[in-house]
Amino acid sequence: MAVNLSPPNPSELYPIAGVRLGITEAGVRKAGRKDLTVILLEAGVSVAGVFTQNRFCAAPVQICREHLAQAAGVRAMLINTGNANAGTGEDGRNRALHSCAALAEKLNVSASQILPFSTGVIMEPLPVERIEAGLDAALADAREDNWLRAAEAIMTTDTVAKAFGKQILLDGTRVSITGISKGAGMIRPNMATMLGFVATDACISPVLLQQLARELAEASFNRVTVDGDTSTNDSFMLMASNKAQHARIDTLDSAGGQALKAALLEVAQKLAQAIVRDGEGATKFIRIQVEGGKTADECRQVAYAIAHSPLVKTAFFASDPNLGRILAAVGYSGIQDLDQRNIDLYLDDVRVATGGGRHPAYLEEDGQRVMRQSEITVRVVLGRGTATDTVWTCDLSHDYVSINADYRS
Amino acid sequence: MAVNLSPPNPSELYPIAGVRLGITEAGVRKAGRKDLTVILLEAGVSVAGVFTQNRFCAAPVQICREHLAQAAGVRAMLINTGNANAGTGEDGRNRALHSCAALAEKLNVSASQILPFSTGVIMEPLPVERIEAGLDAALADAREDNWLRAAEAIMTTDTVAKAFGKQILLDGTRVSITGISKGAGMIRPNMATMLGFVATDACISPVLLQQLARELAEASFNRVTVDGDTSTNDSFMLMASNKAQHARIDTLDSAGGQALKAALLEVAQKLAQAIVRDGEGATKFIRIQVEGGKTADECRQVAYAIAHSPLVKTAFFASDPNLGRILAAVGYSGIQDLDQRNIDLYLDDVRVATGGGRHPAYLEEDGQRVMRQSEITVRVVLGRGTATDTVWTCDLSHDYVSINADYRS
Repeated sequence: MAVNLSPPNPSELYPIAGVRLGITEAGVRKAGRKDLTVILLEAGVSVAGVFTQNRFCAAPVQICREHLAQAAGVRAMLINTGNANAGTGEDGRNRALHSCAALAEKLNVSASQILPFSTGVIMEPLPVERIEAGLDAALADAREDNWLRAAEAIMTTDTVAKAFGKQILLDGTRVSITGISKGAGMIRPNMATMLGFVATDACISPVLLQQLARELAEASFNRVTVDGDTSTNDSFMLMASNKAQHARIDTLDSAGGQALKAALLEVAQKLAQAIVRDGEGATKFIRIQVEGGKTADECRQVAYAIAHSPLVKTAFFASDPNLGRILAAVGYSGIQDLDQRNIDLYLDDVRVATGGGRHPAYLEEDGQRVMRQSEITVRVVLGRGTATDTVWTCDLSHDYVSINADYRS
Repeated sequence: MAVNLSPPNPSELYPIAGVRLGITEAGVRKAGRKDLTVILLEAGVSVAGVFTQNRFCAAPVQICREHLAQAAGVRAMLINTGNANAGTGEDGRNRALHSCAALAEKLNVSASQILPFSTGVIMEPLPVERIEAGLDAALADAREDNWLRAAEAIMTTDTVAKAFGKQILLDGTRVSITGISKGAGMIRPNMATMLGFVATDACISPVLLQQLARELAEASFNRVTVDGDTSTNDSFMLMASNKAQHARIDTLDSAGGQALKAALLEVAQKLAQAIVRDGEGATKFIRIQVEGGKTADECRQVAYAIAHSPLVKTAFFASDPNLGRILAAVGYSGIQDLDQRNIDLYLDDVRVATGGGRHPAYLEEDGQRVMRQSEITVRVVLGRGTATDTVWTCDLSHDYVSINADYRS
C-alpha cells in the first residue's frame, strides 16, 4: 500500500545507448525469483558513486570504493538481492571479489572494472557459487531496454518497482535519463539497503559527473528517511555513456549543465521519494520544510528531528493534529540558542502556532482536515535567518512494527 | 504490562522530616481523579533541580529555573497532571505564576518560593482557577507519610506508580531517602513529561546538593530512553531537609559523601529505570552497555544510536536475534574513525560478533534464547579505549503505536 506510487511507466524508461541490463534467477536466497542483475557498460561510459556513511559498511561497498579509485574504467555492475554481504568480515570481501573476478573473466576485463552490490540478509555468507552460476544467463539476457525488469529484480520487500525516466534537449540534441531504485526502510527486516542507479547518454566530463553524483545524492537520497536507520549498503551510482551528440558539458555554470542537472535531479528525487512512498507500513507521504534558519544545516537538523520522532510519526498515522509533538521535536533538535518565541508552524496552508504558542485563529478542525490527507507539508519557520531545507518522510504505523517484528523467514 | 515492575512497597517509603505532601482532586482535565499535589518544605530545606534541555521548555520549567535562581528558599512545589502548560507562550507563564502566587499567599511566603510543575496535554491553556480552587484541600491533606499517594497522583498514562526509598547510616545516624517519579514515554500522546522528586533528611551543603542533582540526573534520568523524544517539561528535583543529626556533608570526597551519593543514585536509578519498565507498550527491559571507547561520550553516542533504532527495538519486541541491526546502528552512530574490524558484540553472555563479523562459534539458538528474556543486556566492545557508558531502554511494540496513535480523548 505505497502512498500515491504507481508502477513504472514503461514508455518513460528510455534505453541508454551503451548501457545494457541482464537479469536472471540465481537462487541466492530463494528459488524462482529474479535476484541477479548485471549492468554492462561499453568502454567510454563514465561512472560516479556515492556510498553509505555507515562505518559498518558492507563488503561490496568497500570494494566499490576501491575499484572506483582505480584508473581502469568500470565495465559492469553486479547486483544481487537476498544477501547483503554485510557484517561478514574478511570472508565477505573475498566472496565479493571472487564474484567480480568471475564476471571479469567472462567479459575479458580486469576484476577491478566490476562493481558489486548486494542487498538482503545481514551476517550471512554470500552464496557466491550460485551467483557465479547465474552469470551466463544474466549476460545472455542483456539488452538496453531492460530497465523495468531490472527495477523489479533489485526489489527486496519493496511493494512497487521504482523506475523513472526523462528526456531533454541539449543544443537541440535529445538526451535521455533513466534510473531505478530500491529500498523501503533504510534497513529492511533482513533485506538491507537503498540502491539507486541512474544512467544518461549525455556527454559530460568524468570530474563533473562525480560532483553531480554528490550533489544529486545530497538533494535526493540524502533527504529521505523512513526510520532513521542508515543501511550498511546504501549506494547511488550515476553513469554517463557520452553517446549523445552535443558539446561535452564540463561545468554546471552553463545552460546545458544547469538543464542536465535539473533533469537528473528530477529523476533522482522521484526515485528517492518513491522509497519513502513505499516505506515500511507507510500510509502518508510527508514533506518537512524548515525555513528561516541561520544555515541550511540547522534547518536539516530540525527537519530530521521532526522526521525521526516516533511521536510525530504515530500522530500522522492517526491523523491526529497533536501538533505540540512537532514543537517539542523542534525544541530538542539541538539548536542551543533557539528562541521558541520566534517560531511559527504550518500544516499545509493552516497556521497552527505562532510565537511558540497556539495561533489564536487556529481551529483543530483545520489541522484535522490536513492531517487526513495522504500528502502533507509541515512547514516550520525558525525566524532567525534566511536558510531553508527540506526532507521527506512517512508515518509510523502498526504495519511498520509488524513488518520489522516478523521473524526472518 | 510494565516489565518486572511491582507497585511500590509502602514500608520502604520513609517519611522525610520537614517534607509534607498533600493531594487532591482538582478536576484539571477530568473529574474524579487525584491530579494536584503540593510538596510543603519547612524553612531550611535545600532544593536543587535539573530540567529539560528542550528549547521549547514549558512555562513551569521556565519559572522553576527563575525561582531557583533567586535567593529565597523554596517552600513548596505545586504539581498538576492533565495539562502540561507547554507551547502556551506568555499566557502560559502568567497562568503558572498566578498559581504560584495563590499558593504563596496561603503559606504566607513569596511567590518566588513556589516551584510549579505541570504534565499533560500540550498547547492547551492551564485551568488555573481549578488548580487554585483545589489548594485548600491539598494543604489540608499534607502529611509526611503521603509519598505513595503522591506517586499515584502524579501519574498520567503510567500503568504503575513509581516510588522507592532507602535508608543508610551516616556517622551512626539513620538517614532516609524517598523518591517518586512519573513518565512512560518522554512525551505521552497528550500527557507529557518525566518528573522525578527525591527527598532526604540528610544534612548537606546547598552547593553540593546542586552538584549531586546534576550528577544523579546524568547517571539515571539522562540514561533512559523510550522513544528519544525529550519532553518540554522534564524535571528532576532533589531536596535535603538537613534534619538528620550527622555532621554536614560538604564534599563528595568523604566516606559519608560517597555513601550518601551511592544511596541517592540507587533510588534515582530505580526511579529512572521504572520509567523504562513502564515505557509505552514495553515488553522488554534492555540495558545497553558500550565498552572500549575513547571517551564515555562516544560510548553513550553508540548506546543511544542502538537504543533509538526502530529496527533494533522491533527486533527485541519480536525476540528476533537479527543482530546485524545492532552492528548497523553502531556503524551509523557518528564515530567517524570507527574501525568495524575491532568490534565485538555480546547478548548477555553470548558472543555474537567478533572483528566486525559473525563469531564463528555463535549459534542462532543461543541468541534466540537471550532474546526471549524479559531483561537483556546488549554489550558492545568498541576496541579503541577504556571508556564505558550504559543506557536503559525498552522495545518498540504494536502497543507503542496504538497508545500514541490514539486520538486524544
